[in-house]
Amino acid sequence: MEEKVIPDIVVGRLPLYLRALQRMAEEGRQVTSSQELGERLGISAAQIRKDLSQFGEFGKQGTGYNIEYLVEQLQQILHVDRDWDLAVVGAGDIGSAVMRYKGFADRGFCVKMIFDSDPDKVGTQIGNFIIQDTALMEGAIKAAGIKVAMIAVPASHAQDVADKLVKAGIKAILNYAPLSLNVPPDVRVQHIDPAIHLQRMTYYL
Amino acid sequence: MEEKVIPDIVVGRLPLYLRALQRMAEEGRQVTSSQELGERLGISAAQIRKDLSQFGEFGKQGTGYNIEYLVEQLQQILHVDRDWDLAVVGAGDIGSAVMRYKGFADRGFCVKMIFDSDPDKVGTQIGNFIIQDTALMEGAIKAAGIKVAMIAVPASHAQDVADKLVKAGIKAILNYAPLSLNVPPDVRVQHIDPAIHLQRMTYYL
Repeated sequence: MEEKVIPDIVVGRLPLYLRALQRMAEEGRQVTSSQELGERLGISAAQIRKDLSQFGEFGKQGTGYNIEYLVEQLQQILHVDRDWDLAVVGAGDIGSAVMRYKGFADRGFCVKMIFDSDPDKVGTQIGNFIIQDTALMEGAIKAAGIKVAMIAVPASHAQDVADKLVKAGIKAILNYAPLSLNVPPDVRVQHIDPAIHLQRMTYYL
Repeated sequence: MEEKVIPDIVVGRLPLYLRALQRMAEEGRQVTSSQELGERLGISAAQIRKDLSQFGEFGKQGTGYNIEYLVEQLQQILHVDRDWDLAVVGAGDIGSAVMRYKGFADRGFCVKMIFDSDPDKVGTQIGNFIIQDTALMEGAIKAAGIKVAMIAVPASHAQDVADKLVKAGIKAILNYAPLSLNVPPDVRVQHIDPAIHLQRMTYYL
């Protein structure tokens, strides 16, 4: 794993494996197989075995995978065996929903701060968080050493926010604004745009 | 295009091209090139030309692409030259944010109804919509002929909701619940799970 470059498409499937395995663990399960995992995920058992084999030998033939062990290994591989602090920019509907979202627990993320540029919102609370002024964002993120951020502002502001986040040292951005962001090569961006996901399906309808 | 099977990864890029082109059109632009489009999207110009050439001849060498024409063509290819009615299931934070989301206009989608199983929510309003009882979902969706739905319920209820949507004739599901859904082969599912997207980036950090 040290030197080998893993294709990004393989990396993209690992979080799905981890999520399914964590769910099995919650169900009290201890052992699973690539067949069962594949059925849950709609991915072939051969594909799963091939993907996991890139990182080591996790299962024994005939006995399957120890779920707890494989969860730990995948958490290490994906670097979520620790909690990453998150900064959220934009306190509209989506930003607020993210702040209240319970789904980050046990998955490696913890929301730490939220910013908005609307003077009517700055200083008010969402859950336990006080909305801070976007003007203070760069300093606050740097001081806290935060590396991961979410952008939930209108498209017209998103590139400007992204530029400021990059200056603040952010290395991974989850972008809810409906446009592609330009960032330096050492910064990762993932996009969530429901219309894009829907259009990808209507092609087939 | 009639007989040729287009790889799903190519289909997945078309909505990104469409979004960027629609944005250029809003900016008052009339002509673009694969180079410019590529710079906006972080995709190579050669890749864009290759993807588009699968569907026909949209640009002239030296003069580039007519933006309005290419938007129309991509809308036809993706079947969003019409509006698809949407049913939303789950009136929590995410479902409510989706109901209020303005980003579907001009992108082929129109939210038509929302359902929840919580008696305290049924009958109350989100925007202009009255939340309906999930028990009535199958009949209401069938009667309206809706083919596209979003699931925004807790993971523990999502498969059950998906089964009911399939019975109601839904053919495309955008799933916000953090688990993989099992559906028949003629039903498409796309997943939005922020933790999955984040884990895909922390691998590289």
